[in-house]
Amino acid sequence: MAKFAGAVTAAQGFQAAGVHAGIKTSNHTKKDVAMIYSTVPCVVAGVFTTNVVKAAPVRYDMEIVKKGVARAIVINSGNANACTGQQGMDDVKETAEYAGGLMGINSDEVLVCSTGVIGHTLPMDRIKEGIASAHSALSDSPEGGHDAAQAILTTDVYLKEISYTIDLDGVPVTIGGMAKGSGMICPNMATMLAFITTDASIEGDVLKKLMKEAADLSFNQISVDGDMSTNDTMLMMANGLAGNAKIEEGTKNYDLFMEALLKITAYLAKKIARDGEGATHLFEAEVINAPDEKSARKIAKSIVSSNLVKAAIFGKDANWGRIICAAGYAGVDFDPSLVDIYLKSANGSILVAQNGGGLEFNEEEALDILKEENVFAVVDLKSGNASGKAWGCDLTYDYVKINADYRT
Amino acid sequence: MAKFAGAVTAAQGFQAAGVHAGIKTSNHTKKDVAMIYSTVPCVVAGVFTTNVVKAAPVRYDMEIVKKGVARAIVINSGNANACTGQQGMDDVKETAEYAGGLMGINSDEVLVCSTGVIGHTLPMDRIKEGIASAHSALSDSPEGGHDAAQAILTTDVYLKEISYTIDLDGVPVTIGGMAKGSGMICPNMATMLAFITTDASIEGDVLKKLMKEAADLSFNQISVDGDMSTNDTMLMMANGLAGNAKIEEGTKNYDLFMEALLKITAYLAKKIARDGEGATHLFEAEVINAPDEKSARKIAKSIVSSNLVKAAIFGKDANWGRIICAAGYAGVDFDPSLVDIYLKSANGSILVAQNGGGLEFNEEEALDILKEENVFAVVDLKSGNASGKAWGCDLTYDYVKINADYRT
Repeated sequence: MAKFAGAVTAAQGFQAAGVHAGIKTSNHTKKDVAMIYSTVPCVVAGVFTTNVVKAAPVRYDMEIVKKGVARAIVINSGNANACTGQQGMDDVKETAEYAGGLMGINSDEVLVCSTGVIGHTLPMDRIKEGIASAHSALSDSPEGGHDAAQAILTTDVYLKEISYTIDLDGVPVTIGGMAKGSGMICPNMATMLAFITTDASIEGDVLKKLMKEAADLSFNQISVDGDMSTNDTMLMMANGLAGNAKIEEGTKNYDLFMEALLKITAYLAKKIARDGEGATHLFEAEVINAPDEKSARKIAKSIVSSNLVKAAIFGKDANWGRIICAAGYAGVDFDPSLVDIYLKSANGSILVAQNGGGLEFNEEEALDILKEENVFAVVDLKSGNASGKAWGCDLTYDYVKINADYRT
Repeated sequence: MAKFAGAVTAAQGFQAAGVHAGIKTSNHTKKDVAMIYSTVPCVVAGVFTTNVVKAAPVRYDMEIVKKGVARAIVINSGNANACTGQQGMDDVKETAEYAGGLMGINSDEVLVCSTGVIGHTLPMDRIKEGIASAHSALSDSPEGGHDAAQAILTTDVYLKEISYTIDLDGVPVTIGGMAKGSGMICPNMATMLAFITTDASIEGDVLKKLMKEAADLSFNQISVDGDMSTNDTMLMMANGLAGNAKIEEGTKNYDLFMEALLKITAYLAKKIARDGEGATHLFEAEVINAPDEKSARKIAKSIVSSNLVKAAIFGKDANWGRIICAAGYAGVDFDPSLVDIYLKSANGSILVAQNGGGLEFNEEEALDILKEENVFAVVDLKSGNASGKAWGCDLTYDYVKINADYRT
């Protein structure tokens, strides 16, 4: 069963906090420093931005994750510590050392994440004050996790946190996750941060494999604006305190764990898509009867990434021509003359194109479907048995407004 | 010297017309059928959309261009004849036969282009009426070319036409071009149509090479919204009436011709970018001191394609962090710690980032630069001697407005 509050402290042995340290100068009350801490060492896995321009904390965390062990994560929002040169890297190290000192652990067990504006060095005095008060506030209560989930947000409107407890041979194992998204979401881990904690007992290489697959089916299938950020990071820590028999590949327990993890990452990914800057709709594209899953996912991603499709979703316009057009430049070969397109929502389903051509359909019925908050396009390629999904949002006046004056 | 009116009739032996036939039902006065006709057969070259979903006229024209000879082009705006199945292809053939019959030439010497909404079959009665009146109106005057340039527009605000006359060993040779753009501009020939006519004497394979290179440096370096359309087409016809010695590769005359052709395509491409739906700025990105030209062009294209950069240009925000971020996901490796970024316009130039990090700069000075209509970003990689440019526009409220209700 899913629980929505205090997700990163839901698993045993995890504490968290979120405090206001004044990093976000534009808003003097928002929380902006978060901390996650495990009472025992964890195996850790990470997925990072593939942008050539990587923020200092990303480059730092990549090294920690290579070693595979960590106990804490310190996150600030409001300043990305990207494009900050040697000073940026020095600040990450100072952050890890300072936080590690307070927690009584080595600095190389502390992961560091940042999100916010690019090109400004961190205000280290306020960062340290934030870390000190976050450390004092660390709690394994739902409130601790909830505060942390608030502190990592930037222009996000909604909180993103969820946890599941599953039963592995009679042993309850909990996984919890929180995320932030908003702008720069795409292609492959855009300015999004996601943190997953679990008390599962699992080896690092198995954790890595599970996490990579979950990311590919969720966070890597969302798009808000096609911009891939300098800071995208997904981190997962497993501390083993549940006491389950170690999760091994190719077992029923592996599949059960994967299923729960995927529920969490898909939930968070959809929340991020829905919460795209200025968005009014969550838009899901599903490609069915494709020759293979990768092609299906690529086409679905191309559709949710199209500005023209996104503007049509905003306008509640059943413009299937833009959908098939975006499918056509996904870089995947298919026969357009076979394609059927359905538009769906809680208000019904309508076939708008068949065999690559338009159909006469009831525009009012289509409008009724498209006025719902969650809108789905199903593209049937009739060329195989594989399917794939992607999630995005509409392109609105508010997206432009938010991004025309974010920095100043 | 450049001439701006009646470009496609500037070269000897070319006639053109543009008439109102009622294809654009939303506007009952706009011209929507254009015709170009050469009094003698031409060698022809074409560049087409790489979208898997190609409109019927594109598939038809690709076959004609393979044969390499044509004499006329019939263009309609208002209906793209895309996703229209067998009927769509039948309509293209009927169009070519009808127009060829009136002009007294074979139907396989008639190229056909369409632009507009996707998924509706052509109103053939009105298309034919339009062709008949365009045929009656054919004229080698500037007015003929000017009318044609008007008739191919859709949501374009500005006319796009230009011609040059060059001197090849004492023989005047003229090249003229017209284009339409607006939405769906990117990557690689998006809903844009471009038509170039010249009286140069030149072999088909040489023409093809010249045109491909000119397209790569101009139309393939523009982006309005990253959507590549089903109909993108660039066609070039050369009728040889100038009487120059045939232009051969590796000669001075080849270079002179290329230079003039590139002036024309770059002019038209920039006009298309500036005329992006809802745009208020033309935005040029230039990448200098890159290891090679292709990498420079790829990075420049990534920058002008970023929604976040485009929104910042709209907001007159010197947000260089988004520029370096978009450079970082272009798929080209470079050292971010070497990068300098300048913002420029007619009002001056300002260095906003140096060696991959931000600089303190005068925000008022930056605003003064960014308030100009034509804005430039120069990204210095300090990693070689090659450079490349790309052009785009800002992302505005009006882009969203235009595309939220284009179809309905």
